[in-house]
Amino acid sequence: MAEENVYLPVKKATAFMIDALLKMGVPQADAEIVADVLLASDLVGVRSHGIAHLKMYYDRMKQGLQQPVTRWDIVHETPTTAVVDGGNGMGMVVGHHSMKIAIDKARKMGLGAVAVRNSSHYGIAGYYATMAAREGMVGMSVTNAHPSIAPTFGVEPMLGTNPIAFSAPTDESFPFRFDAATSIAPRGKIEVASRAGEPIPAGWVIRKDGSLVTDSTNLIEEMDDCKAALLPIGGSGELMGGHKGYGLATVVEILSAAFQDGAFLSELHDTDHEGNIHPLRIGHFFLAINIESFLPLERFKKTAGDIVRELRESPKAPGEKRIYSAGEKADAISRRVAAEGIEIPPGLQKNLNALRAELDLTGHDLGF
Amino acid sequence: MAEENVYLPVKKATAFMIDALLKMGVPQADAEIVADVLLASDLVGVRSHGIAHLKMYYDRMKQGLQQPVTRWDIVHETPTTAVVDGGNGMGMVVGHHSMKIAIDKARKMGLGAVAVRNSSHYGIAGYYATMAAREGMVGMSVTNAHPSIAPTFGVEPMLGTNPIAFSAPTDESFPFRFDAATSIAPRGKIEVASRAGEPIPAGWVIRKDGSLVTDSTNLIEEMDDCKAALLPIGGSGELMGGHKGYGLATVVEILSAAFQDGAFLSELHDTDHEGNIHPLRIGHFFLAINIESFLPLERFKKTAGDIVRELRESPKAPGEKRIYSAGEKADAISRRVAAEGIEIPPGLQKNLNALRAELDLTGHDLGF
Repeated sequence: MAEENVYLPVKKATAFMIDALLKMGVPQADAEIVADVLLASDLVGVRSHGIAHLKMYYDRMKQGLQQPVTRWDIVHETPTTAVVDGGNGMGMVVGHHSMKIAIDKARKMGLGAVAVRNSSHYGIAGYYATMAAREGMVGMSVTNAHPSIAPTFGVEPMLGTNPIAFSAPTDESFPFRFDAATSIAPRGKIEVASRAGEPIPAGWVIRKDGSLVTDSTNLIEEMDDCKAALLPIGGSGELMGGHKGYGLATVVEILSAAFQDGAFLSELHDTDHEGNIHPLRIGHFFLAINIESFLPLERFKKTAGDIVRELRESPKAPGEKRIYSAGEKADAISRRVAAEGIEIPPGLQKNLNALRAELDLTGHDLGF
Repeated sequence: MAEENVYLPVKKATAFMIDALLKMGVPQADAEIVADVLLASDLVGVRSHGIAHLKMYYDRMKQGLQQPVTRWDIVHETPTTAVVDGGNGMGMVVGHHSMKIAIDKARKMGLGAVAVRNSSHYGIAGYYATMAAREGMVGMSVTNAHPSIAPTFGVEPMLGTNPIAFSAPTDESFPFRFDAATSIAPRGKIEVASRAGEPIPAGWVIRKDGSLVTDSTNLIEEMDDCKAALLPIGGSGELMGGHKGYGLATVVEILSAAFQDGAFLSELHDTDHEGNIHPLRIGHFFLAINIESFLPLERFKKTAGDIVRELRESPKAPGEKRIYSAGEKADAISRRVAAEGIEIPPGLQKNLNALRAELDLTGHDLGF
């Protein structure tokens, strides 16, 4: 194990993830999907949701919180809509197939929407929205999650980080891609600060006493014990628009749960009210909009491209060199990671080495 | 004219608005729609977009910026989608008919989406989303607008206040209703502060030099001259999630313009690059999702209701008495305004009296 960061080539990472998933009991085709979703996260620079999560999924499977074999099923269907039951399998497999159903319906009917019940953590929401953009469609995906965000004027973690992902093709080499938690900061950033012993900006997290936390020591534990909660985009109270972030997180909760008669809010803890562990029963919602049902695809792409270019070229604040459009940073990171490999810090090296030993995958040379 | 606020009964306000619109040349059926949208705004407490806007629409019609007779037309259609041309008529008339088309399509096909070009200011976005909720559907509506918001790391007003509206029926007496500009503060709040000579919170508005404005003197003029801009939800920079608000505003711009080959960003000024006035050519996007295409409506309503109730009942921050869900405050205000009338401050009394005189509507006794 190295003392510093190691760069793991993308090919090696993919091969290792697939073999590890096979050893966990995930079927080949599903393992390829899961590895692709995790890799996509590392490629856009969201390292918390990439290969770093592999061991967490294994731990969850061992506890019986999710099934390695995903027995998903369409429980209700119309030409434009479907309700999918994920059978508490792998969220990425459920997500991938559900978005594919939405895309197929949109190709035939113009629009397609799929609500999902009994799923699990599905990785980055942006993956699924981008699936649609690659097919010349606009894609949206949202999911609920383990309670983390406090409502405006509240202090308890109630809503998941409830991300909103939206992707649209443009005439550039990469799509417009918005993918954001409805909290100000993702949980991953708190974990990173906590591990490094660094403070966090006041306003990201609220404590039960209403104070805004800056000391990150044991903060993840406090959040898991419901003694602290993430604040929604816009922050504490209503003055800076905190009610807007809270409202958006609620929109995501309704979309994710209400179309499929599913679990929500406090039901999305790993344990029930008696303290027994149970599957999360996460819900997702996918929407695909076939652009050709409105106008020629090339016209859409040109307008979307013109919009992001005009934004990027607008006057900068003094000292700022660049204005980005959503998806632009991800594209740059993606090219860098493909060339240089995935940055694996010492903690993650340890984590992956443990997985390699436990799954008897010592044939894989990860370079650490 | 009174020196203090006067409460104008809803019935009198509606009758006055309809007669005024008729005098402006708006046909009877259209006048009823416009009055209903404006009244709906006053009923939910968004007074800036209610009867207070009536004179602005008249002034815009007189300048030729929008047409009193709305010749809207479906220019492209599939069983689930449509592109509507608003003929630079009244945005509310265009919006009402377009959302109705989306709802009718969703009733037959499960989903319906309508993109609109060549429209004008359509009032509050929430009106159209709520039309769907009343029909047992989930409704969404977004619109672009006159440039107001600066992108992250930028200083120039580029994006409109680009609101996102989402409404869903619940088992309560009023729907879940989210309706928010993607800027922290709406333009209306800056106008109110400026008129009252009061400061605004640092972080709502950025000046060309990158400073955060607190002095509201002449701020609307500065914004109109592109010397200051609203900041997106999340504020300046990326630390508190400003890029998320900026990203959402861009999502709205793409939805509103790209599906209908329409105008966007800097094209949405009242004057073209040579300084000649021209219609705004605003774009909207409407989506209706028929809940019964997923599951029985009553199940959806119960889940959505349970979600908002659980949020409201969660632990409050010290000193806070209440947690609201989106639409709850609007419902309370709505009952109060229906009983007490619309609050008309002295400035608006003057504005409405001028309109009454100009349109020869002296038969209307407004009580001031």
